[in-house]
Amino acid sequence: MTTDTLTVSKSPVTGKVYEIPAVKEDKTGIDAFIALHPGKKVVVVQGLGFVGSVMGLVVANALTEEYAVIGIDLPSPASYWKIRSINEGIFPVIASDPKIEEYYQNALRKKNYYATFDPYAYSKADVVVVDINLDVQKKSAKNKDLEGYNVDLAPFRKAIEAIGARCKEDVLVLVETTVPPGTAQKIVRPMLEAALAQRGLPADRLKVGHSYERVMPGPKYIDSIQNFYRVFAGTDEKSAAAVEGFLRTVIRTDEYPLTRLGNTNATEMAKVLENSYRAMNIAFMVEWSRFAEEAGVDIYEVVNAIRMRPTHKNIMLPGLGVGGYCLTKDPLLASWARMNLFGSEEKLGQSEKGVHINDKMPVYAFDFLRSQYGASLEGKKVLLLGVSYLNDVGDTRYTPVEGFYDQLQAAGCEVSLHDPHVKYWEEKDTWINPQLDELLQEHYDVIVITTGHRDYRGNAALLEKIKQQPAGWIYDTIGVLTNEEIRSLQEKHTVKVIGRGDL
Amino acid sequence: MTTDTLTVSKSPVTGKVYEIPAVKEDKTGIDAFIALHPGKKVVVVQGLGFVGSVMGLVVANALTEEYAVIGIDLPSPASYWKIRSINEGIFPVIASDPKIEEYYQNALRKKNYYATFDPYAYSKADVVVVDINLDVQKKSAKNKDLEGYNVDLAPFRKAIEAIGARCKEDVLVLVETTVPPGTAQKIVRPMLEAALAQRGLPADRLKVGHSYERVMPGPKYIDSIQNFYRVFAGTDEKSAAAVEGFLRTVIRTDEYPLTRLGNTNATEMAKVLENSYRAMNIAFMVEWSRFAEEAGVDIYEVVNAIRMRPTHKNIMLPGLGVGGYCLTKDPLLASWARMNLFGSEEKLGQSEKGVHINDKMPVYAFDFLRSQYGASLEGKKVLLLGVSYLNDVGDTRYTPVEGFYDQLQAAGCEVSLHDPHVKYWEEKDTWINPQLDELLQEHYDVIVITTGHRDYRGNAALLEKIKQQPAGWIYDTIGVLTNEEIRSLQEKHTVKVIGRGDL
Repeated sequence: MTTDTLTVSKSPVTGKVYEIPAVKEDKTGIDAFIALHPGKKVVVVQGLGFVGSVMGLVVANALTEEYAVIGIDLPSPASYWKIRSINEGIFPVIASDPKIEEYYQNALRKKNYYATFDPYAYSKADVVVVDINLDVQKKSAKNKDLEGYNVDLAPFRKAIEAIGARCKEDVLVLVETTVPPGTAQKIVRPMLEAALAQRGLPADRLKVGHSYERVMPGPKYIDSIQNFYRVFAGTDEKSAAAVEGFLRTVIRTDEYPLTRLGNTNATEMAKVLENSYRAMNIAFMVEWSRFAEEAGVDIYEVVNAIRMRPTHKNIMLPGLGVGGYCLTKDPLLASWARMNLFGSEEKLGQSEKGVHINDKMPVYAFDFLRSQYGASLEGKKVLLLGVSYLNDVGDTRYTPVEGFYDQLQAAGCEVSLHDPHVKYWEEKDTWINPQLDELLQEHYDVIVITTGHRDYRGNAALLEKIKQQPAGWIYDTIGVLTNEEIRSLQEKHTVKVIGRGDL
Repeated sequence: MTTDTLTVSKSPVTGKVYEIPAVKEDKTGIDAFIALHPGKKVVVVQGLGFVGSVMGLVVANALTEEYAVIGIDLPSPASYWKIRSINEGIFPVIASDPKIEEYYQNALRKKNYYATFDPYAYSKADVVVVDINLDVQKKSAKNKDLEGYNVDLAPFRKAIEAIGARCKEDVLVLVETTVPPGTAQKIVRPMLEAALAQRGLPADRLKVGHSYERVMPGPKYIDSIQNFYRVFAGTDEKSAAAVEGFLRTVIRTDEYPLTRLGNTNATEMAKVLENSYRAMNIAFMVEWSRFAEEAGVDIYEVVNAIRMRPTHKNIMLPGLGVGGYCLTKDPLLASWARMNLFGSEEKLGQSEKGVHINDKMPVYAFDFLRSQYGASLEGKKVLLLGVSYLNDVGDTRYTPVEGFYDQLQAAGCEVSLHDPHVKYWEEKDTWINPQLDELLQEHYDVIVITTGHRDYRGNAALLEKIKQQPAGWIYDTIGVLTNEEIRSLQEKHTVKVIGRGDL
């Protein structure tokens, strides 16, 4: 039997390869799971990604109610392994949060978290939590004209269709996906009502709401879902009440009270506004970093001074760029919605602009290196310290290191990679050597700090090893080197720091 | 003897008119004052505006040293009255902070705060604190194309010249004015060095530094200078040490430690960056307010929900516009400096854009009213609640209410004004009736809330009186009305709120 790449799914966690079944049916498995939990409400979590798989875990460990949780995802090469992994006792997300394993072992013991690909699960659901991705298609980061983008709702619609074709007439559909504002009211609810009508069912008991998580993969992964403020709304009064009732059973609402907003447009807007605020504040600092470089100023020193004001605590720092799943796309979702779902003739120009500025940061970081370096970079040996977009976490989704890495490659550099938190760089299909000592036995022309991991901050041993390298370039794109460290490196090396003109 | 407007100066505090002396000389007065304070260091504060006059007060009440303080300003119609007022026992700034009067009475008792117009004072100064204005010339708010601006350094240079022509060779010149980054190093120090050279004096004992206050006129006026974090730098090591020594004597540095930055470019940049950050964050919300109006969302509710996140506490709210002396010009000073003092070909485009967006807010607020109102506004009676740009403070400098007021006037409205904190609106040369009850005996077609004063928030008596008005329009440009208040007003009136499409 042949197993070509379209019919297998490989786990990056264990390396195990699963054959995707030809017959996409799991009725027996679902029925058997539900039979184990008589009288319990069934919660189906749609999407087993970074949010959905862990949301399922949180619901399986709900605070005041026992649920039977079914996680559902597509039987695709990218997702099928997650389904098998959950059912085989290996959680598909590697995280530094010990609660992940604790919650998962709990669920295994209670046998109340099952995974499947069969949409038959929707027919059993009292609650469906929608946690699938809704992506923005951007032009490639290799293209310097990064301003084009597109929002394709087709996969999202397909997921809602799958629910509507089978759901109970009184199901609660809780959208947690970050969606263009207007989606629950203008897309999800009408689609589900039409589907019920087509099945000859009334729509007056249907409940549709929206609430967004603020999940942060990392050491507080579970807490960022269960012990954090939630904002929610319903498409009508009944829906809002149902969402509130459900959230109260899974989230520690005594310590983190729920906030109900007037309608789902408002909650959907709140989520993308939050992230646009952050993206724009980073973009704002980009120009000031350039100004600081020109004026012989250390922008990090300036920002730290400003942050002493309580009203300015959240001023951001510049760096290599912006990564992750939210800040890189949410402002675009919002702007798209304004024009396409609410018929405005104006986009959210400043928020879009913020994304574009941030997208170009790795281009600037590379140009800065190239122009300062003087000589050609071809054939130079370059070591990147960090590929994750976030400090102290192994998350490479939309990491700005990728664009920087691509440009080094295109310039003919021989690039080595290190990251203490990333074993396997999925987007580049590359395994990463976690042994920094081993990597530093090689000699590099340029060592670039690309992520602000704790391992690279104030690490005297690392500094000593870098000093033992032959004279070369040290390029700090994040501003983690202290003045003292810079001066000590300058005894031998050339040091450049983004946002600092005062070295 | 005639006293035309060029030779008199009128106090808006007391109404008293002073004749400006023809002979601009006060050597006797200055010498007599200094003779009262043998052995004390002389601090000259240049500029007796909102900052300088109060900074003088703080230095006269220094914590660990007794200074003889001379405030100096121009013998002009706009400023001469301040000099006379200080010397006659009436402090020229009206503020709700009781410490102002306390500190002033202290200084009167100690006789250690004298005011003059005679630059002879500089020859006696151990320290000169520069607290004059440095303005940006913008196109008129009546012009919808607001994007032009100009920075004219001539008045600032003239003030530095006045110091250089007379100062001691070892004077400390501490610039507190918000200046284009680069000013202390590239303008002030070279000018003073050249002036000393011309007088045959060496420049090696000259000290020039920069430190910015974060003064907030209002109930914590004095504290905002004396009990708050300060950032400083010197143009050389000696200057930095001198600035630090001086600031330690006047500021509560034990509780609010000083922050020294690498050079004066950095401190100058920090100040304008702080204010640009805030201006840009307000501008950012403008687009989102429009989106909220289109999507039937209450932007205030959304922002309040987002603010529950510690990382998002400082997200701003929209409103009628941005006023005051700092946020309306500092981003422009910075952008101007980048191009004109550091030769960059790029402006700080986003920061400039932020100012322009904010400048257009009153235009939008008026257009919103006009388009919603339907009928012509000509001859309509309009009451504005608030002319100050800041809640609970009477400060009309660059208040956005001005642009809004001008447009109402131009549209032929009959505009009445109220503000509990502003007796006299200087920019409009208009006295304001503080008796709201009296004003509300008239009937208005439109009542507009233009400032978020506490007096207008949750004020049941006010609400009752507004409800007793004949059916008309209530227009909240700040979002101070609660849902309940709106509903109660809607029983009779038409209510519109900027940033809310959900009424």
